[in-house]
Amino acid sequence: MASFTRLVRFLAKDGKTYYGDAILPSGATDLTRVAQAKIIRGSPWGKYDVTEQIADVGQLLAPLAREDVGAVRCLGLNYEAHARESNMPIPSYPVLFYMPATSLTGPFAPIPVSHMAQSCPGLDYECELVAVIGRAALNVSESAALSHVAGYAVGNDVSHREWQLKRGGGQWSLGKGFDGWAPFGPGIVSSSLITNPQNLRISTRLNGQVVQESSTRDMIFGVAKTISILSQGTTLLPGDLIFTGTPQGVGMGRKPQLWLKDGDVVEVSLEGVGSCVNMVEFEKSRPKL
Amino acid sequence: MASFTRLVRFLAKDGKTYYGDAILPSGATDLTRVAQAKIIRGSPWGKYDVTEQIADVGQLLAPLAREDVGAVRCLGLNYEAHARESNMPIPSYPVLFYMPATSLTGPFAPIPVSHMAQSCPGLDYECELVAVIGRAALNVSESAALSHVAGYAVGNDVSHREWQLKRGGGQWSLGKGFDGWAPFGPGIVSSSLITNPQNLRISTRLNGQVVQESSTRDMIFGVAKTISILSQGTTLLPGDLIFTGTPQGVGMGRKPQLWLKDGDVVEVSLEGVGSCVNMVEFEKSRPKL
Repeated sequence: MASFTRLVRFLAKDGKTYYGDAILPSGATDLTRVAQAKIIRGSPWGKYDVTEQIADVGQLLAPLAREDVGAVRCLGLNYEAHARESNMPIPSYPVLFYMPATSLTGPFAPIPVSHMAQSCPGLDYECELVAVIGRAALNVSESAALSHVAGYAVGNDVSHREWQLKRGGGQWSLGKGFDGWAPFGPGIVSSSLITNPQNLRISTRLNGQVVQESSTRDMIFGVAKTISILSQGTTLLPGDLIFTGTPQGVGMGRKPQLWLKDGDVVEVSLEGVGSCVNMVEFEKSRPKL
Repeated sequence: MASFTRLVRFLAKDGKTYYGDAILPSGATDLTRVAQAKIIRGSPWGKYDVTEQIADVGQLLAPLAREDVGAVRCLGLNYEAHARESNMPIPSYPVLFYMPATSLTGPFAPIPVSHMAQSCPGLDYECELVAVIGRAALNVSESAALSHVAGYAVGNDVSHREWQLKRGGGQWSLGKGFDGWAPFGPGIVSSSLITNPQNLRISTRLNGQVVQESSTRDMIFGVAKTISILSQGTTLLPGDLIFTGTPQGVGMGRKPQLWLKDGDVVEVSLEGVGSCVNMVEFEKSRPKL
């Protein structure tokens, strides 16, 4: 039994859905276009086995099945330049909110925009490093924190600024937790491969144009410090995700402001991991109320 | 196969943990001191069977097992008098935040207060009606919303005002989501018994003294309206909980302010359901960091 190095979940060309350990060409690190994987049997948080059976990847899915995801924690204002462009103070402690697991979606899935979210302008992107907890963490020190991380992915914390900041009464969840508004993936790269999560390039392209470009070195609360603080009196469990905040360059902070439109393609990328590429899809038919 | 009327989960006197349908004396509605229940086989969100096998209740547990809980949504400022005592505006839309499932605990379990939460004053209570989703809800109307509710419980949204309102950077989750800070129960009373959730007395006693006393009639967003709004573009799933906000009388709003202390006993009660009675337990040993 071996541990995974790059966990992917995929619809295989045989029509079945598998967990797998991605097979990359020698020297490659980008999971975005992975073609083959060794099939993994079992649950990533229980007993599992990386087999020698190789499957052809048809389509990459969210790297964790719904039943293998715990709490989805997110940090706000965790890059100084982003806090400044948001006209918000630099935080003294992590600014924490949660998303429901139903907001998670695959690295190439569409981002559905409901009628409620179409009712006013404000649709925005946020590239983020996502840390995946692999071992329960309670009251852990900063120096021990990274040993609780299974691996890292990239995510897009799609946000509606009007519902998040104004109509939400100051709490951000209403404008962030819609179905499919948190693409993540394209896989989870083991913390045995990414031993330092604080020196990775992170970026967003909107319809091919770079709109965010930074490094995880600029986080205010790095992954280790974040896990240490969040675990004080709160148990983080295997399968919990932490979206660690976005750098500057979001649409809200631009002059003029730049909002996502129907048909836009957003690509969020993290060095050593790969990209999520998602199309914005405004829902056409109005739900009957 | 019958549907449950009052779902409880309990450690039986035979040493095993069961789901059950509470057996109450004729005319009684309060689950707090239930002594017997018909054993339920299966999952409350899948196929289950209310058997004729009767078990003696040893200790009531959180009415849902961890694996049967989905997202835990909470509303803030959902009673006008509480919004006023909090010096907050009356909201135009539900003020939504989430708690992790690890914050849930049983109706008689202690509320552990970690060293982080002991580091400054501000520990407070909040009695709340808890609606439990029993059928998936997406884009539902207000008139159809209650048909998605399995039943109702009472909960205590224990809150640390300093971590919630100040150190949390404006987002409330950091001061509310600690392990065991959301007692709920004592069971889930079916929506077939509580057909109108907007006319129930709700209260808190602190060491026997009444400190909150109101009616769910005073909610700004009733359960049906809340579910309709929250389900727009967001799928609510069976096992999702909605803590629907607290009335006036919290410790923060008193002069002088009244904070929970080590050893205090807090009882939250909802008419037709019963009470959760929980002792505040400050952690004594300091975690090694």
